[in-house]
Amino acid sequence: MRAISTVLGTKVLGTGLAASLLLALSAPAGAQTRIPEQAVDTATQLRETALASDLGYRITESLTTEVGPRLAGSEADARAVEWAKAKFEALGYDKVWLEPVTFPKWVRRSESGQVVGRHAQPLTLTALGGSPGGTVEAEVVRFADLAALQAAPAGSLAGKIAFIDYRMERARDGSGYGPGSRVRSGGPSAAIRAGAAGYLMRSAGTDSHRNPHTGITRFDDGLEPIPAAALSVPDADQLTRLLALGKPVTVRMALDCGWDGEATSHNVIGEITGSSRPQEVVLIGGHLDSWDLGTGAVDDGAGVGLTMAAGKLIGDLPTAPARTIRVVAFANEEQGLWGGKAYAEKYAEEVRRHQIAAESDFGAGRIYAISTGAPEYAQDAVKQIAEVLAPLGIEYAGDAGGPGPDISPFAAQGLAWARLAQDGSDYFDLHHTPDDTFDKIDPAALAQNVAAYAVFAYLAASAEGDFGSGVQADGATDGK
Amino acid sequence: MRAISTVLGTKVLGTGLAASLLLALSAPAGAQTRIPEQAVDTATQLRETALASDLGYRITESLTTEVGPRLAGSEADARAVEWAKAKFEALGYDKVWLEPVTFPKWVRRSESGQVVGRHAQPLTLTALGGSPGGTVEAEVVRFADLAALQAAPAGSLAGKIAFIDYRMERARDGSGYGPGSRVRSGGPSAAIRAGAAGYLMRSAGTDSHRNPHTGITRFDDGLEPIPAAALSVPDADQLTRLLALGKPVTVRMALDCGWDGEATSHNVIGEITGSSRPQEVVLIGGHLDSWDLGTGAVDDGAGVGLTMAAGKLIGDLPTAPARTIRVVAFANEEQGLWGGKAYAEKYAEEVRRHQIAAESDFGAGRIYAISTGAPEYAQDAVKQIAEVLAPLGIEYAGDAGGPGPDISPFAAQGLAWARLAQDGSDYFDLHHTPDDTFDKIDPAALAQNVAAYAVFAYLAASAEGDFGSGVQADGATDGK
Repeated sequence: MRAISTVLGTKVLGTGLAASLLLALSAPAGAQTRIPEQAVDTATQLRETALASDLGYRITESLTTEVGPRLAGSEADARAVEWAKAKFEALGYDKVWLEPVTFPKWVRRSESGQVVGRHAQPLTLTALGGSPGGTVEAEVVRFADLAALQAAPAGSLAGKIAFIDYRMERARDGSGYGPGSRVRSGGPSAAIRAGAAGYLMRSAGTDSHRNPHTGITRFDDGLEPIPAAALSVPDADQLTRLLALGKPVTVRMALDCGWDGEATSHNVIGEITGSSRPQEVVLIGGHLDSWDLGTGAVDDGAGVGLTMAAGKLIGDLPTAPARTIRVVAFANEEQGLWGGKAYAEKYAEEVRRHQIAAESDFGAGRIYAISTGAPEYAQDAVKQIAEVLAPLGIEYAGDAGGPGPDISPFAAQGLAWARLAQDGSDYFDLHHTPDDTFDKIDPAALAQNVAAYAVFAYLAASAEGDFGSGVQADGATDGK
Repeated sequence: MRAISTVLGTKVLGTGLAASLLLALSAPAGAQTRIPEQAVDTATQLRETALASDLGYRITESLTTEVGPRLAGSEADARAVEWAKAKFEALGYDKVWLEPVTFPKWVRRSESGQVVGRHAQPLTLTALGGSPGGTVEAEVVRFADLAALQAAPAGSLAGKIAFIDYRMERARDGSGYGPGSRVRSGGPSAAIRAGAAGYLMRSAGTDSHRNPHTGITRFDDGLEPIPAAALSVPDADQLTRLLALGKPVTVRMALDCGWDGEATSHNVIGEITGSSRPQEVVLIGGHLDSWDLGTGAVDDGAGVGLTMAAGKLIGDLPTAPARTIRVVAFANEEQGLWGGKAYAEKYAEEVRRHQIAAESDFGAGRIYAISTGAPEYAQDAVKQIAEVLAPLGIEYAGDAGGPGPDISPFAAQGLAWARLAQDGSDYFDLHHTPDDTFDKIDPAALAQNVAAYAVFAYLAASAEGDFGSGVQADGATDGK
């Protein structure tokens, strides 16, 4: 296959170098990946067609309206799988199929919280995904951040509720979510180690509404899980004000939720078959599951809708690009990248077939940059793509960032990734909350995303030469 | 008393004229109400003191934090009464007392809604105040507005759920709330007349969050009440999209709420005693009760906090104004102006003692205008007040608008009113929702409100001459 022989040409240079250093390598003359001029012309037309289309918006509307919330493993998740298969078929994809993904099933039945005593009042909270059920009524002890709770001596919170009041920062690139989500993932285990009976956190979010942010948590091995929940931002403010009065504050949190056996959902896949190198695949996609509080519009109905639309618009061209466009609606991203892991496992031997992959899972804001993990010999081709994207307000950004969540397991096995970086300034106003609903999506911004993904996928699928998938540290390739 | 003799001077002019026409009358020379120069100087200082103070903000914080939501007749409402009495006392008011107010008690226990069938998903809704409990599972019939539902033939909605999808308009002066709130007050009876088993409405609100707007409704005499609820704005959008798919949509709404006997709460009153005419009263205030979903910060913790602060700052002056400043935290405004009606009834014979009244019950936005229902002979004095308010961005606005809700029953009996018009552009984003919380208040805007109320109350209490309270159509006066 052409792509393999191209990369094999780099072998003489690569022995013993770390894969990341490949970025600094120059391939021999003639091994440079490049995009044919005619493909650039077609992509330019495709971009304008996509900008004028509301297809991505309508697909996203259909999913979020007709299915609504679709917690992994739920009845609605199964409906979402049916919906995705039917939608790929209705859009005229050449091949459509399901791949099973099995995972532990978590269910939320009810949840409530309140301050008890002289300042009695309800608190708006939501169980963290993975929390056990249970009712805890106890004094609250506040910590400014995760490190403060981790420093609490063992036993010092015996019978109490630990509360981390960390306020997440707003940022275009979502960089505030790293520390914010670590409070969610690491807080409960730290609380248990200090003896706490329950765990509360200020939501990892940037809004100011009575809509708490859920999201998966975990418990370190050997610890007995405790009920763990997030307060809405105004409720965290309120609890902090009550604590500032200087007297003990008792909260009752009652969660009815927990793990409940296993469930099987599906990665749903649609393909536009390549015209000359159909075995080579450019992968785009989003994740089909959502949290249960909203209808999963920005997380990640938009990602599914816009990549489905991009593939469909490529399929509408008179001639398909050389390579196959594969659109994947991944199963159960939210609770641990289950769909992405299943995909990486299933295709472990076929990383070389996958030329490059990009997942949209950061909302529906405009894309402002493209970056890839591709090696130096492919960067001119990425720059060619960036030139076609430039009228959309998108800049070339080298190797900034990393792969989307569902392609990250496969990227760890050598898959080349691209990142179409979205403006996520308001993403964490909505993410994992009841407020993640279709009305929050700007149709013009979504069309810009469709245009960007269509251009990217079409040009990557038209490139002569590869983007580095399956290139080992020693310059060898794996997969077939 | 000076004020009476001043008004008696107008008697020769007024025979047979409607009270509203008094605005067009000129009092005889010497009967003009005016404000002494020294009072203007003091008020100018007071304005600056108030602007630099966070007292109103802190009082509002105290109420909304320590008491939280305070539905009329609830345990928390009783705590709010205790809080208000203690706060007036702590602020050093000269007199503090309670006046009982009895009303029917409405309680909300639980509520839920969902679409059932092939698009099964939860809907966020809240029972309207006054709704009976009950569970209805029925097909939804959508109406664009109240008139459309009112035009539905009797029996045409037998067993169905009527849904009014009217979208309220945003406006600085809140003028969109008239038609919006009529959907809430008039919709249920129209639904019953058409045979409906349940009633849903798009919330009377201007936000886009999953926070429904409650508020009182009523049922016309002779009709059997049905469960009545408001969907959040995004949920109304969602239901409308589902209906647009063209197949019947069935919703299950389950409300556990209803009337439950009577309750007695209290108007809580604090006074700063006037220095030379203590029997004459200038009244300012807000309402102490709130809906139960939020903590009643903009509706109407702010009104209580800012008027309490204004009175306190007047009380801190070396010399009190001539007249008494009375600050009233009214009971149960939300369910039918019960506190305002009780006040008007109790003081029906004393309207002449009440020189003028202003209630703050439109959030915590900046005040942009002052208007009154005072007669022409008092308008120069109002303009004098407006001059002191002008540096706050406040304009003189004649007789625009009308009295605040709790003073309107007394105004109907002849009480002169003032309106300090607030910018309510975002008020109906929050009003009657879970999102009405303290974090929504801008402390600088609240200080501006305190300054305006302090200046207004101080100068009205310092005026020589009256503002028209108790002046009859024939120019006579009533009360003592």
